[in-house]
Amino acid sequence: MSRPPEFELISTYFGRGYPDSPDVIVPNGDDCSVIAVPAGYQLAQSIDTQVEDIHFPAAAPASLIAGRALRCAASDLAAMGAAPQGFHLALTLPNSDSYWLEGFACGLRDAAQTLNLPLLGGDTTRGNSLVITVAVQGLVPEGAAITRGGAKPGDDIWVSGVIGASALALSTVLDTPHKDDTSTAPYWHPQIQTALGQGLCGLATAALDISDGLLQDAGHIARASGVKLILTDSDIPTAVRREHPDWQRCLSGGDDYQLVFTAPTDARAEIERLSQTLGLKHCRRIGAVTDGQGVVLQDATGRDITPEQSGYSHF
Amino acid sequence: MSRPPEFELISTYFGRGYPDSPDVIVPNGDDCSVIAVPAGYQLAQSIDTQVEDIHFPAAAPASLIAGRALRCAASDLAAMGAAPQGFHLALTLPNSDSYWLEGFACGLRDAAQTLNLPLLGGDTTRGNSLVITVAVQGLVPEGAAITRGGAKPGDDIWVSGVIGASALALSTVLDTPHKDDTSTAPYWHPQIQTALGQGLCGLATAALDISDGLLQDAGHIARASGVKLILTDSDIPTAVRREHPDWQRCLSGGDDYQLVFTAPTDARAEIERLSQTLGLKHCRRIGAVTDGQGVVLQDATGRDITPEQSGYSHF
Repeated sequence: MSRPPEFELISTYFGRGYPDSPDVIVPNGDDCSVIAVPAGYQLAQSIDTQVEDIHFPAAAPASLIAGRALRCAASDLAAMGAAPQGFHLALTLPNSDSYWLEGFACGLRDAAQTLNLPLLGGDTTRGNSLVITVAVQGLVPEGAAITRGGAKPGDDIWVSGVIGASALALSTVLDTPHKDDTSTAPYWHPQIQTALGQGLCGLATAALDISDGLLQDAGHIARASGVKLILTDSDIPTAVRREHPDWQRCLSGGDDYQLVFTAPTDARAEIERLSQTLGLKHCRRIGAVTDGQGVVLQDATGRDITPEQSGYSHF
Repeated sequence: MSRPPEFELISTYFGRGYPDSPDVIVPNGDDCSVIAVPAGYQLAQSIDTQVEDIHFPAAAPASLIAGRALRCAASDLAAMGAAPQGFHLALTLPNSDSYWLEGFACGLRDAAQTLNLPLLGGDTTRGNSLVITVAVQGLVPEGAAITRGGAKPGDDIWVSGVIGASALALSTVLDTPHKDDTSTAPYWHPQIQTALGQGLCGLATAALDISDGLLQDAGHIARASGVKLILTDSDIPTAVRREHPDWQRCLSGGDDYQLVFTAPTDARAEIERLSQTLGLKHCRRIGAVTDGQGVVLQDATGRDITPEQSGYSHF
């Protein structure tokens, strides 16, 4: 009931190449890491597990699996408006194959550099299947975290970019797990909106990252805020046009990790400037918040066209 | 590649009964939890995974498994001198059996109350086997975290209590995984030294919690501090007497989660007062730090009796 010897050595794969941070007081290697939270800030934290052949194809290259796991976890920071501070990794592996581990470490490091996430600590264990747990943390100005609960009637609803590309790439990913090109990039390399999220602090009234489909996830904002969200089909930036048979899958597919957020109408100009600065060409207003409850999708004439299956069903 | 419906509902099992904390700004249920770190404090964090039939017998009651997982993780906070602030849970399950889940939730809640650890957030996923990852965090006064690297020649070496009881209970635990009585208590309900750890801030120069055997873990302090640790056999409080055939297993067995720590000789009186206040009858000086490297076990005459196998080998 203890660790097999080789699993302690695995930590050597994760020893170097991560961003530094002045917040790190005691780095990885002691009983705990110790970090400082600068005055005027609070700490946003999220923990996220991915299991082989449930959340990703086990046959895919380790570097892709690692990079995606970190990106997906970091998306929760973006959704709160938090600046990435660091992460802890808990990795459960069926074996300690060094080729696989090098790939995993490489993909993790690259994503950590992109996302500016120092590795604060970790634990490696043996198990029957590959299980990756990432605990991310980020800094938000005191009281400024963007929750799901602040949307107000009269607010605009925005989405940060094109949705559906990852859902449409999924069959290619499953058929050819080694393919790493533009056809699979939306799945393996989702663009995490941490810069936008931070910019939205003080502007957005509510936000979340889309992981289970726009319509379903918008429902979380509606519930937490006690409001109704009305989305207009033609305003939503989707990977295929409105007329395409796959259009509806774009609305119900997750995994693009775009943000959906609400903001008062007087924040429009500032949000547009922000999205221009960040090069987010498809950041767009897609509807309005009203009194009531739930999420309604309507067409340009105001007709209710809400599909019955609004995302991956959790009920 | 998404969550099965019942796994979202599992969070309902973990919804209530945890300690509150004034540090929690945004509780579990949003994209991230948000916490405050009070002025003058830093945050100690550790992540710890336990896998069924590697770290615990899968056939044991879920409440015991959960409680032990949280206690073992919290021990890292004790070793840094941190006051428990909260934890995140990532739970991977082969199925969503409600009876098992209720037991798990109950054991987790009880341990969280004992340890004063609010549940800050979590993630539940499906997988082939049970994998429990606990990310704990605690507060330490700025700059006061007790690392492994501060031991100085001339310091005393202390252990917080009796070691070896858990190692000696292991065969009973494996033979009768449902047994929850005094014979298995050292394994299932290790006494985590968070109060002692906090009291040692400013007194101890180095500390860690024993998880792989006293001799081996003492080696981590020797290496990190660049010193030699000399332990005297008759001073070490063990579950069986020096003459017993199992005595050596007490020194190399982990899982008691007692603290081993070093402190200057002029801190003796204060450490004794502290351990008396906390009712730690077996907190005891077991040796001295000198120049050099490594860990030596000697008998009362000063003869080197260091065993070759000093704990679970990681090399």
